[in-house]
Amino acid sequence: MSGEPAIILLSGGLDSSTVLAEATAAGRTCHALSFRYGQRHEHELTAARRIAEHFGVAEHVVMDIDLGVFGGSALTTDLAVPKDALDEGAAIPVTYVPARNTVFLSLALAHAEVRHAREVWIGVNAIDYSGYPDCRPEYIEAFQAMANLATRDGVEGARLEVVTPLVELGKADIVRRARALGVPLEHTHSCYDPGEAGRPCEHCDACVLRARGFAGAGFGDPALDR
Amino acid sequence: MSGEPAIILLSGGLDSSTVLAEATAAGRTCHALSFRYGQRHEHELTAARRIAEHFGVAEHVVMDIDLGVFGGSALTTDLAVPKDALDEGAAIPVTYVPARNTVFLSLALAHAEVRHAREVWIGVNAIDYSGYPDCRPEYIEAFQAMANLATRDGVEGARLEVVTPLVELGKADIVRRARALGVPLEHTHSCYDPGEAGRPCEHCDACVLRARGFAGAGFGDPALDR
Repeated sequence: MSGEPAIILLSGGLDSSTVLAEATAAGRTCHALSFRYGQRHEHELTAARRIAEHFGVAEHVVMDIDLGVFGGSALTTDLAVPKDALDEGAAIPVTYVPARNTVFLSLALAHAEVRHAREVWIGVNAIDYSGYPDCRPEYIEAFQAMANLATRDGVEGARLEVVTPLVELGKADIVRRARALGVPLEHTHSCYDPGEAGRPCEHCDACVLRARGFAGAGFGDPALDR
Repeated sequence: MSGEPAIILLSGGLDSSTVLAEATAAGRTCHALSFRYGQRHEHELTAARRIAEHFGVAEHVVMDIDLGVFGGSALTTDLAVPKDALDEGAAIPVTYVPARNTVFLSLALAHAEVRHAREVWIGVNAIDYSGYPDCRPEYIEAFQAMANLATRDGVEGARLEVVTPLVELGKADIVRRARALGVPLEHTHSCYDPGEAGRPCEHCDACVLRARGFAGAGFGDPALDR
């Protein structure tokens, strides 16, 4: 592996797994970064480990960070995860974790500086998404501007780029891209509220968005056949 | 306590303790936030607890976050802390922790959103400082711009402000301000590499800057008399 080093934020879901596939296809030496951030289940991290292994990353760092200490999200507390609610039009759902992408990108920035990587890849998507503010292109641009003032590398003239290959793709396009790049979709995990053995609930926003993506692409979801 | 809520980043050093005193004097309901981030010693956190208690904060959250997992800094690894090196002119010293203020401000942003606070106070200082890029006013402005695109509160029109009362003060002015506001200076801890019972080494950059501040203000440092 002699490609340029890049940090890849990897949750083990459809989107971030596709991003890792894109970075690998682009010849990067991939440093995957995942977080144990007080999620209610470990299935995401199991998925992340399998995906990282599949693509032969240079390293996979799993960092503990207890965002649950602040409370405020259904993903890190006992609040109920809404079911079949994707189209109800609430501006931002309770599954939003406060400042999550900012926290994750900041830690990726630290990792990038130590590994001398000039790219952080993240699977944000502003088309078929859950309405989180920190998935929008204007947010990503502002983060990048801040990052280039924040670090020693930035001061010394190196540019950091936040790479968002999925930002303008619909979910069906992401499914097509994932298949074309050989993402082992049966190992990806998107559900916010899985049942036994990690089986997707098929009713939370993440499951509904994913199902629409597979339907739109004309494929079955292999994660439902496990 | 009926003042507006504010998040105060509190390390237990001279600067952040003075910032907590300023926020208290300004009538804020203070939510102090400290980090166990892989520092080589616990004296900072002991100091932070004493200072928080002194000022009667509404809460003091100490969050674990292992920045040491990335390596790269003398403050979180076995690299030697430089002594008597403050004026050698190296652009940015090895005690710089990659992206530390970005990570800390990001977590403060998460805390602020959950507590409905519109201010994050931080003791950065761009006059008598160690040359860290993430202490400069242009960095703070960029962070604030990003933060206002990142959160649900931001999307709904609330502005988040990063408050930096010390940014244009010299160290002697900070010492004067701390004394005027009743900061218990004997409990503050600045040293990067303390000896037994937390005694300052008096030779690292933090100790040298602090000593110059007390000398400039014409006071003795009560932390040296413990």
